Amino acid sequence: MNTFGRNFRITTFGESHGPALGAVIDGCPAGVPLETTDIQPFLNRRRPGRTPLASPRKEEDRVEILSGVFEGRTIGTPLTMIIYSTDAQSKEYDELKEVFRPGHADYTYQKKYGWRDHRGGGRSSGRETVARVAAGALAAKCLTLKGIVISSKICSIHGATTPDGMEEEIRKALEKGDSVGGILEIRATGCPPGLGDPVFGKLDAIIAGALMGIGGVKGVEIGEGFQAATLFGSENNDQMGAEGFLTNHAGGVLGGISSGEDIIIRIAVKPTPSISRPQRTLNIDNKEVTISVKGRHDPCIVPRVQPVAEAMLALTLFDALLEQQKYQNFSRDITK
Amino acid sequence: MNTFGRNFRITTFGESHGPALGAVIDGCPAGVPLETTDIQPFLNRRRPGRTPLASPRKEEDRVEILSGVFEGRTIGTPLTMIIYSTDAQSKEYDELKEVFRPGHADYTYQKKYGWRDHRGGGRSSGRETVARVAAGALAAKCLTLKGIVISSKICSIHGATTPDGMEEEIRKALEKGDSVGGILEIRATGCPPGLGDPVFGKLDAIIAGALMGIGGVKGVEIGEGFQAATLFGSENNDQMGAEGFLTNHAGGVLGGISSGEDIIIRIAVKPTPSISRPQRTLNIDNKEVTISVKGRHDPCIVPRVQPVAEAMLALTLFDALLEQQKYQNFSRDITK
Amino acid sequence: MNTFGRNFRITTFGESHGPALGAVIDGCPAGVPLETTDIQPFLNRRRPGRTPLASPRKEEDRVEILSGVFEGRTIGTPLTMIIYSTDAQSKEYDELKEVFRPGHADYTYQKKYGWRDHRGGGRSSGRETVARVAAGALAAKCLTLKGIVISSKICSIHGATTPDGMEEEIRKALEKGDSVGGILEIRATGCPPGLGDPVFGKLDAIIAGALMGIGGVKGVEIGEGFQAATLFGSENNDQMGAEGFLTNHAGGVLGGISSGEDIIIRIAVKPTPSISRPQRTLNIDNKEVTISVKGRHDPCIVPRVQPVAEAMLALTLFDALLEQQKYQNFSRDITK
Amino acid sequence: MNTFGRNFRITTFGESHGPALGAVIDGCPAGVPLETTDIQPFLNRRRPGRTPLASPRKEEDRVEILSGVFEGRTIGTPLTMIIYSTDAQSKEYDELKEVFRPGHADYTYQKKYGWRDHRGGGRSSGRETVARVAAGALAAKCLTLKGIVISSKICSIHGATTPDGMEEEIRKALEKGDSVGGILEIRATGCPPGLGDPVFGKLDAIIAGALMGIGGVKGVEIGEGFQAATLFGSENNDQMGAEGFLTNHAGGVLGGISSGEDIIIRIAVKPTPSISRPQRTLNIDNKEVTISVKGRHDPCIVPRVQPVAEAMLALTLFDALLEQQKYQNFSRDITK
Repeated sequence: MNTFGRNFRITTFGESHGPALGAVIDGCPAGVPLETTDIQPFLNRRRPGRTPLASPRKEEDRVEILSGVFEGRTIGTPLTMIIYSTDAQSKEYDELKEVFRPGHADYTYQKKYGWRDHRGGGRSSGRETVARVAAGALAAKCLTLKGIVISSKICSIHGATTPDGMEEEIRKALEKGDSVGGILEIRATGCPPGLGDPVFGKLDAIIAGALMGIGGVKGVEIGEGFQAATLFGSENNDQMGAEGFLTNHAGGVLGGISSGEDIIIRIAVKPTPSISRPQRTLNIDNKEVTISVKGRHDPCIVPRVQPVAEAMLALTLFDALLEQQKYQNFSRDITK
Repeated sequence: MNTFGRNFRITTFGESHGPALGAVIDGCPAGVPLETTDIQPFLNRRRPGRTPLASPRKEEDRVEILSGVFEGRTIGTPLTMIIYSTDAQSKEYDELKEVFRPGHADYTYQKKYGWRDHRGGGRSSGRETVARVAAGALAAKCLTLKGIVISSKICSIHGATTPDGMEEEIRKALEKGDSVGGILEIRATGCPPGLGDPVFGKLDAIIAGALMGIGGVKGVEIGEGFQAATLFGSENNDQMGAEGFLTNHAGGVLGGISSGEDIIIRIAVKPTPSISRPQRTLNIDNKEVTISVKGRHDPCIVPRVQPVAEAMLALTLFDALLEQQKYQNFSRDITK
Repeated sequence: MNTFGRNFRITTFGESHGPALGAVIDGCPAGVPLETTDIQPFLNRRRPGRTPLASPRKEEDRVEILSGVFEGRTIGTPLTMIIYSTDAQSKEYDELKEVFRPGHADYTYQKKYGWRDHRGGGRSSGRETVARVAAGALAAKCLTLKGIVISSKICSIHGATTPDGMEEEIRKALEKGDSVGGILEIRATGCPPGLGDPVFGKLDAIIAGALMGIGGVKGVEIGEGFQAATLFGSENNDQMGAEGFLTNHAGGVLGGISSGEDIIIRIAVKPTPSISRPQRTLNIDNKEVTISVKGRHDPCIVPRVQPVAEAMLALTLFDALLEQQKYQNFSRDITK
Repeated sequence: MNTFGRNFRITTFGESHGPALGAVIDGCPAGVPLETTDIQPFLNRRRPGRTPLASPRKEEDRVEILSGVFEGRTIGTPLTMIIYSTDAQSKEYDELKEVFRPGHADYTYQKKYGWRDHRGGGRSSGRETVARVAAGALAAKCLTLKGIVISSKICSIHGATTPDGMEEEIRKALEKGDSVGGILEIRATGCPPGLGDPVFGKLDAIIAGALMGIGGVKGVEIGEGFQAATLFGSENNDQMGAEGFLTNHAGGVLGGISSGEDIIIRIAVKPTPSISRPQRTLNIDNKEVTISVKGRHDPCIVPRVQPVAEAMLALTLFDALLEQQKYQNFSRDITK
């Protein structure tokens, strides 16, 4: 299942070290002005190799549009964005061909399919998210046309909550050949009330699935989140006054439907599994071996997850907005 | 969107105070032995009115099967389970007809649809989950035929982690006309490796969406969950020895695919929004009013969420199991 | 797969001789005025036992609404319509328990599932269409609110094209213990241009699938249909003048999208397979036997297929109309 | 909606004169041996410019695989096939920018989207089918691994049923600046019984939708098709003897489920709408104009539709085969 969305449907493709990665977006409205310059900045934010603390792997991640745009506007047909690979050094992964890296999908892919592209994680590589970010950039552009803006911030890295502290945690991990994770907050402002479907299409449920579907995410919460389990109902309820909600403990979603308040989500990102410290594992012949993952890896992927998380929220919200439009207009027409 | 699942698809229907609630299950394999006695115990666990601390509302919640079963076995056709309402006292909700209860979906439903059944929450009532539990009981039965067992436990109520402490927290909330929430853990044992799809059908993503889609759930985490954000990679990775995984920090899912270890999920349940303490709110004419929710409400719904959460996990896993079967067998056949 | 539609989604359930048949409609807009009196006339048209030439089986087919309507209007939640069985005489089917009736689904169901409800065809009975007609009646009501009207007529029965000739063909078949089929035309007027999706959601493709999905339908054509294969392009093309299309050879759909002209479809209905004349067949032990199907069967089901075909066209068009609304409005908003 | 299939899901993209066309196939089993040489012959059969009677447009239609294959086998991840454009001469379409060609989708696209790529029909061009044929070739390969073979033949061209007669009809149309259509038969042999879902997933319904979704197809029939409307039940029923079905009037599908007999379909293809004879039409300013379509067009596309129709049947059958596998195995396991 490589397709996401009911109305604004994206299908991503590509393996980490294959010739290209990309996304086909089906269901984008016609008439949206679009250039690759609308997309490229989002990809640049996701790109590795931008700071001394990040992976030195150098991918240009230059996006091209192969279909769906004519004379600078979307035309309602499937929009294909593609990123050709330029810096795939597969050789350095040869030694991992027959070994399951701890914390990676190597073992489960092998069990599921019986075959896998082991080079750099293949399809399970974080590199797959380049396609999500490209598609998410388009969704974000569509949302801004309706006044909805997505943003994110890092709440903590390995427990540290100040910029200096976070950087220090990453540096220490790097020195030890280890890695660290952290917590991100993603927010949507300007979202109208009424998005989301009761029961199985609840807006917060779709968001939770979308964000948990990012590699390395181990927890998702909305509004008060896990903290709500320690509050009284009288503390957690959002009362209303003449100007609307007096608080936003709910995080912008009530009964699965957006309330008009900011949508506020937090996700927990695990420490990168690729570490150079030696670890025990098995090879594909079920023999115990010791592994030390070399390659060009980030000691902390939290900053690079930011544009991916924003993309998934943008995709979810724009999909819900299109869903809502079809009913809203019909009901309005028949009752006026 | 009142349908859940790709292969084992359930569609639920019914409002809290309508004549009936139920579920149609499409995609259940033929040949599964089934009686209503397989379903009823799950509904009984969800039922209100069983303890002095719970809502005195008395629903029998007796399930009937209207289709899909012949001579004691499923026959591959849609299986309909229905629960007729017996104790719907709509009158007591009349005063809430024009007021939005804080923490409830009243306001957002009104904004979304322009119309709503205000009686007891209508479709957004927790009563809707009776249909999910019925369908989930069937999924759970199918799973046990494959050796997979679902269970759950309460981790905490309003911060308390011992049975006596939890009961005390609920009692205090009841006395104050207030409510409390808590944290649940849901677990699947016996799950084979290979379930779940990479990218947008990740098993943990589907589970997260399924559980966040239960009313009142504000957070979902798997394995170490939010705690993973404070660990080193060397602490969080699950290394492997001759007997398999040495730890299960991942919670049974790697790269979105089940690893064969126990699947372990925790969810945060908010305090019930229906409290008798007075709260500020608006009515449908946008005027400020004060509300004190009477009715027959639970001061803590955490125990009643247990069978619902188990049902959603069962539905997700059985759906993934059917998905896996179609590929597994094809690949096995062509490569032997 | 017992669900039809992407936006206005109906799921039907029930076996011919089970306790009930029905449909759950998910995705109906809120605010549509609805009573059972809007639905019942459609069911009455489909009902057997209305003429001396038709099956004497007496089903009242009285529809009840179990959910989704409150105070006379739809509320956006799943709408359940149910028809309880009253005249199921299963005993007379006992002798067919172990024999595959020629032209029926008995053999293929057995091969597919390994189990089946043999009573009156079970799920494969034409009786299943009562649920489609109920749902289609709601779709037709929604369409009329937008000025779209569905109708149908019988073109021929066993080759005869006049009312008297058709009646004569049915009478002769009845006397011989045999059956006859015919051709129906279904038409939609008032359909706006722009419905339908290019490529895999073409309006004519969806309609063809919807109508071929009615039991006994063996062919579907639109506009000139098979006749188009004998025309020159200059004859078959619909040219345009100041007032629009000068002809409608296309049958109202161009490139998969409605043109604004009448949508005109014809379907071929096979002769009812249940005949009393003796036929060779197999039983479930793979032994040859001779069968003479008794029971209460129509010698010609063409007139009873009419409301079913209208229902499927109504479901398809209203689904396409909702689909179109979501894009139309977005594109209009951003370009004005 | 540019995605087809529930299990073996293909999404196609690309406009006639854009940089590339292609398909992403999601849900292909892992382990299938695959080279571009498995695909190219199917594309070659669809290619224009092979005979003096066909369009002289020269597209190489060379397929490349961008993802989903590793070391010569599919790996379960999305498989992307792309065909870069080489001979797109957009200039010659400039004069058609503001005119709606009769019989083409120009008018309806403009009405639907408000924008369109007018060059060579854009997305509505027959060129889009190159992507379907590529994906269909993969499906056909998978089917042959299970012993199922797809073929097709031309039944008639403009009424002529002999090779010489057909050629003569095309030649005459070419001389007159006109075009002709015809009838194709598509057949699947080796299909096991049990494929297809009752009610809304009937195998013949899916096939009908798949084939009617090919541009220019105006009618679809199975087995006796429209002829069935003139037969007695006793003539049309397929009786069974010790060796199985004695006839195959049904065309291989009973009650929506394959019977094990050959699946036999016929489709009616309209005459190509692009003709050089002058025709009346409108331009985008709603003014009457006369048009004579120049360009490089086939006077008869029937032979080029053959591989497309085979592709759509292959896609449908392999999708149904995967669907059937998941249930078949579960039911077998639990009842043995």
